[in-house]
Amino acid sequence: MRNRLPSALWTALLALILLAPMPAAWALKLDVTRFELKNGMKVVVIPDHRAPVVTHMVWYSIGSADEPIQGKSGLAHYFEHLMFKGTKKIKPGEFSKIIKRHGGVDNAFTTRDYTAYFQRIAKQHLPMVMEMEADRMQNLQLSEKDVDTERQVIMEERRMRTDNSPRALFAEQMQAALYVAHPYRRPVIGWMDDVRRLRLADAMEFYHRFYTPANATLVVAGDVEPQEVRKLAEKYYGVLINTAPKAAHVRTREPEPLAARRIVMRDARIRAPMVERIYLAPSYRTAKGARAHALEVFAQALGDGATSVLYRKLVVEENLATWAGAWYSGDLRDDGEFGIYASPAPGVTLEKLEKRMDEILGEVLNKGLPVAALERARNILTAQATYERDSQNGLARLFGQALASGYTVKDVLEWEERIEKVTPEDVRDAARAVLQLRRSVTGWLMREKPKHKDKIAASARQEGRKSEEVAK
Amino acid sequence: MRNRLPSALWTALLALILLAPMPAAWALKLDVTRFELKNGMKVVVIPDHRAPVVTHMVWYSIGSADEPIQGKSGLAHYFEHLMFKGTKKIKPGEFSKIIKRHGGVDNAFTTRDYTAYFQRIAKQHLPMVMEMEADRMQNLQLSEKDVDTERQVIMEERRMRTDNSPRALFAEQMQAALYVAHPYRRPVIGWMDDVRRLRLADAMEFYHRFYTPANATLVVAGDVEPQEVRKLAEKYYGVLINTAPKAAHVRTREPEPLAARRIVMRDARIRAPMVERIYLAPSYRTAKGARAHALEVFAQALGDGATSVLYRKLVVEENLATWAGAWYSGDLRDDGEFGIYASPAPGVTLEKLEKRMDEILGEVLNKGLPVAALERARNILTAQATYERDSQNGLARLFGQALASGYTVKDVLEWEERIEKVTPEDVRDAARAVLQLRRSVTGWLMREKPKHKDKIAASARQEGRKSEEVAK
Repeated sequence: MRNRLPSALWTALLALILLAPMPAAWALKLDVTRFELKNGMKVVVIPDHRAPVVTHMVWYSIGSADEPIQGKSGLAHYFEHLMFKGTKKIKPGEFSKIIKRHGGVDNAFTTRDYTAYFQRIAKQHLPMVMEMEADRMQNLQLSEKDVDTERQVIMEERRMRTDNSPRALFAEQMQAALYVAHPYRRPVIGWMDDVRRLRLADAMEFYHRFYTPANATLVVAGDVEPQEVRKLAEKYYGVLINTAPKAAHVRTREPEPLAARRIVMRDARIRAPMVERIYLAPSYRTAKGARAHALEVFAQALGDGATSVLYRKLVVEENLATWAGAWYSGDLRDDGEFGIYASPAPGVTLEKLEKRMDEILGEVLNKGLPVAALERARNILTAQATYERDSQNGLARLFGQALASGYTVKDVLEWEERIEKVTPEDVRDAARAVLQLRRSVTGWLMREKPKHKDKIAASARQEGRKSEEVAK
Repeated sequence: MRNRLPSALWTALLALILLAPMPAAWALKLDVTRFELKNGMKVVVIPDHRAPVVTHMVWYSIGSADEPIQGKSGLAHYFEHLMFKGTKKIKPGEFSKIIKRHGGVDNAFTTRDYTAYFQRIAKQHLPMVMEMEADRMQNLQLSEKDVDTERQVIMEERRMRTDNSPRALFAEQMQAALYVAHPYRRPVIGWMDDVRRLRLADAMEFYHRFYTPANATLVVAGDVEPQEVRKLAEKYYGVLINTAPKAAHVRTREPEPLAARRIVMRDARIRAPMVERIYLAPSYRTAKGARAHALEVFAQALGDGATSVLYRKLVVEENLATWAGAWYSGDLRDDGEFGIYASPAPGVTLEKLEKRMDEILGEVLNKGLPVAALERARNILTAQATYERDSQNGLARLFGQALASGYTVKDVLEWEERIEKVTPEDVRDAARAVLQLRRSVTGWLMREKPKHKDKIAASARQEGRKSEEVAK
């Protein structure tokens, strides 16, 4: 329901927010207009007249979790790349150049739930941008060569971002272990063997099936008025005909978790080992009552930043960890995740650190968090939201992401109020329901000791002991 | 490459085999004829004139790992059920009744790699059986009602065989954790949520795509001659036209394993806890050199039966376990599995048992198994093969399974000779290459203690300790 800022930035902002009395102007009145075109394309307009620019985004409610074919993971992200090839009107690779030539920037991104394309540009170029974006929604022209070239690009991207990064590989293994059946377990970029297999026919089938107005949300934020955007949207997007029915989001529902899972990954490139646990948690969309909002407050109080319980205990007071935290990703279409993590201080084993982390969790779950900590967490969350809403890009993303993930404008607008209403009991109940071992995967990321490379049989229990040497 | 008999039966047979000098007649000369119809359908004929009956099997090289659509697992098995609905000539449900009326038996089964249909019947009915089997390969008629009814049957089957059985659920969780990306991770019967979603259109698409002569192998064993079968096969199957190209077996290749995995599953219904470890291992098809044959010998010597190393040490000598064993499933199309397991004796914890199991493995991997043990393992394996080949059904299955999984008649015929040539060095090298923790998942199946039901945070390290109470 909101974008997360890097912790470091937040630590800095936090001081400002908590020290200064908050001026009323921070709480921006949100002026959001939402309507729908006849073809089912959703439109959100957010006027922001502080500068003569617009942010134009088209969000498709199609992410990697919607990829339809077995053995073809990575197709949603792959296709995002292909959208920068040409149409009859725009030559291959020209799209971004034209935006740039007009002083704008553009980009795109793919997640498990959606794929989004955006441009930020001087307001007078909005019609041009709309024309180009509408054009590539239906008139994309792909050649075998385009698809082959881009496959190499993606494979290189995977090598660089995932295979070259032990942390990224670890995250991938954790996801694959957390979800037994739901497609969130697959990496967005795809398994290498699947990427290798993607062909022009796969791309075109994906395009015709999913890149259609009924699956799209247009977000325009900036120096515009709703009526103006409506006219343009009808002109450029309203004339498009759906090439397929609205996406059904065929995804295997994750079965009720049965078994606690653990992974131990060793990599010679690791300098800072870590222990992480991820629990399957409801999302804002799948949660009942206040549960998701309560988990958000809980994650904030438990582990977001230097004032949080986990950080204060593990890092500041007990010197067991160099960093520690917690997070909740509740803004998914299906069930989401609640995570806790810590990296051991020199001389501390992962075993000891995990044990202490669990003790702290146990205390928190039994006794609840101090009311003051929850109060502070709620304040930080709402202040953070206010801050994000002060950014044109932040606002546009907030609504785009929400609508593309199955949420409503109302969900977004009410978020703050519902966060403020979260009670200590809500937090305790939500935490107890979610933080159960059988709902979780626990991972140890450790440095590989060369002499163990060829070691062929040792129990993971033994691995635990070995960590004493590794974590130094 | 061979069917496995229940251990109990083998313990009994073993005595016979090892005590008696083996008569030459046991080593049946295999009289196998293999040819192909013009449409690509493979045919294997195995004359066996001991009784005036035939075993007729059609094997499709399509299993659950070939299911093409995300979120529709279980389709291969589901479709197997639907093949017993009707055609223009045969009314729904009549197929099996007709076989029965003619004194025969019939059935079908689905695995990860193939789906097979078989009948055993008096030889004079072979033409009728062929006509009916060829008929349903291309003329199946399915109604919405057939498909809806059968969905309920499958869901009930899943409830009974899987959800009602902690061991089956545990096996399902182990598979899901062992394979990170390859479709062998999915249960053959499918995830319940996916089964719920299977529709007539899915079934028909699956049928037209895969149930075609190029994906089929006909095996006829019994009181027949190859020429006779060839004529019949050409008459009934040879006239069929392929409705789709030969299956490409689009399956995500399992990435090189990166992380040791563990699962702990608790279930109140468990009486005998167990520890199991499964390693990703090459199959006969993916292995280089003698590796798969060596793993077969290793599994036999290490853990198949009461004379095996694991059983002797853990159960007989040290009284730590009530049963223990090892297995190798090497007869898959893609990489297979090597497993070891044990169930603790009263008062023994899973932690202690796993530790001892690992020590024994460590010794075996360092020092190798005694030459006599390997010699005995090779003898048992070849004797077992000889025994299986003495059964008409066993022989038919042996070749059908092999051909449907991408093997050749030659692979089957040479198996025994290659097993006999396996050296202690082959076994040691194969075992060392495969039995690495990062290639494995280790699972503990434990009794749930009611008072822990609501326990919400405890490390798996703590779980280890708790097992002391549970295993009593």
